[in-house]
Amino acid sequence: MDKNIKGPVVGVLGGMGPMAAAVFMCRLIALTPVRHDEEHIPAILWNDPRIPDRRLAYFHNGKDPMPWITHAIGHMQNAGAKVIAIPCNTVHLWYDQIVANSPIPVLHIVQAVIDDLHRKGIYSGRIGLMGTALTLQLGLYQGFLQAQGYTCIVLNDEQVHEHCSEPIRLVKLNRVEEAYQPAAVGVSLLKELGADAVILGCTELPIAVPHHRRSELGVPVIDSIDALALATLDWYQKQEKPQ
Amino acid sequence: MDKNIKGPVVGVLGGMGPMAAAVFMCRLIALTPVRHDEEHIPAILWNDPRIPDRRLAYFHNGKDPMPWITHAIGHMQNAGAKVIAIPCNTVHLWYDQIVANSPIPVLHIVQAVIDDLHRKGIYSGRIGLMGTALTLQLGLYQGFLQAQGYTCIVLNDEQVHEHCSEPIRLVKLNRVEEAYQPAAVGVSLLKELGADAVILGCTELPIAVPHHRRSELGVPVIDSIDALALATLDWYQKQEKPQ
Repeated sequence: MDKNIKGPVVGVLGGMGPMAAAVFMCRLIALTPVRHDEEHIPAILWNDPRIPDRRLAYFHNGKDPMPWITHAIGHMQNAGAKVIAIPCNTVHLWYDQIVANSPIPVLHIVQAVIDDLHRKGIYSGRIGLMGTALTLQLGLYQGFLQAQGYTCIVLNDEQVHEHCSEPIRLVKLNRVEEAYQPAAVGVSLLKELGADAVILGCTELPIAVPHHRRSELGVPVIDSIDALALATLDWYQKQEKPQ
Repeated sequence: MDKNIKGPVVGVLGGMGPMAAAVFMCRLIALTPVRHDEEHIPAILWNDPRIPDRRLAYFHNGKDPMPWITHAIGHMQNAGAKVIAIPCNTVHLWYDQIVANSPIPVLHIVQAVIDDLHRKGIYSGRIGLMGTALTLQLGLYQGFLQAQGYTCIVLNDEQVHEHCSEPIRLVKLNRVEEAYQPAAVGVSLLKELGADAVILGCTELPIAVPHHRRSELGVPVIDSIDALALATLDWYQKQEKPQ
């Protein structure tokens, strides 16, 4: 039984929202090349939608999500996790605090997205950003991208409400099919503003804009769920496996 | 932080295969009626593809999966799980042993499927069975269904290989689109043999036969992933929630 806790296990902190985390698990598996089940990545998903709302915590002095996050990471570490992936962009606004409280490394979703831009051969240019109002306002992506030489394009507040917040809300309500239209218009607006690629920088957005409809958009989209899954896979492939 | 471990949490034992368990998480969320994230079911998924192969354990005296299962359930209980759902039909051949070693209740996937037949108004008749060769040979479903007054229809060994084992294998290899055709032919063969409904009694099969293509089949299919998700939701709705 030792192997059960000795091998590299990935801990996934989900619940923000829960569907994004479940889809992350699907994509992590779908993107892992295997010959049989046993080659898949052992992973634990802590999918706890009770983690206090990140926006309320920031703007309205709501309950602090940090103790819940630390608690979840601690449990996953006890269960054998050696790294943490968090398929929620907004919570990365607290990344430094999370890392400071985590006994194991935490992948950064923005770094994963930048790696994915590079993977797709996009090393410079104008990058359209979609995400929650909070991540866009606080510039979660902008600093990292500008430091790498990219120019950022964002929608105005009203457009963010209509083309980011609204599809995110619909995905969270399980009304996924209704979420496509407003999100796709958001991508188009960014394209018209000159974007060479558009980052779906909230993990509900890649669910709103499913893979099979992306070729309709006429601009490459960078999927923060897939980018984090590929970063997780990269991490896993570098670990020593018990024989 | 007490609520984090006091409220009802669902433990999901996955890895057999991992994609089936991840899709189970998606379906559990999609089938839960919510007004916002926080109403979703807190759940932990232990997705460990290293759990020894159930078929090898049975037929070839391979490694025993039971210690891995007991270990996983113990960890999930420590993390707050109050019930276990296992989105793998084959491992339910060990259900009595799992329950005997589990400190918390374990939902039974076959009971969940029978409840789903009832939910769909199917109280009698001929039920076609699809699943792994092991579950069909050892009659995981047959005893339960016959005790409820249903008649079971199964394919012959060669057909099971071609229309059950093969699509299951393709799903496990992430070759999901190729899995539809052989699985759909299996459903059709059972329909021709007189089935009033067909049970997709291996959790890879509902992935092979996606929801949007089921109306093409001309016979109701009972999806063991969705049935277990609905049983989990029923369990959750009956639990007291901390205020």
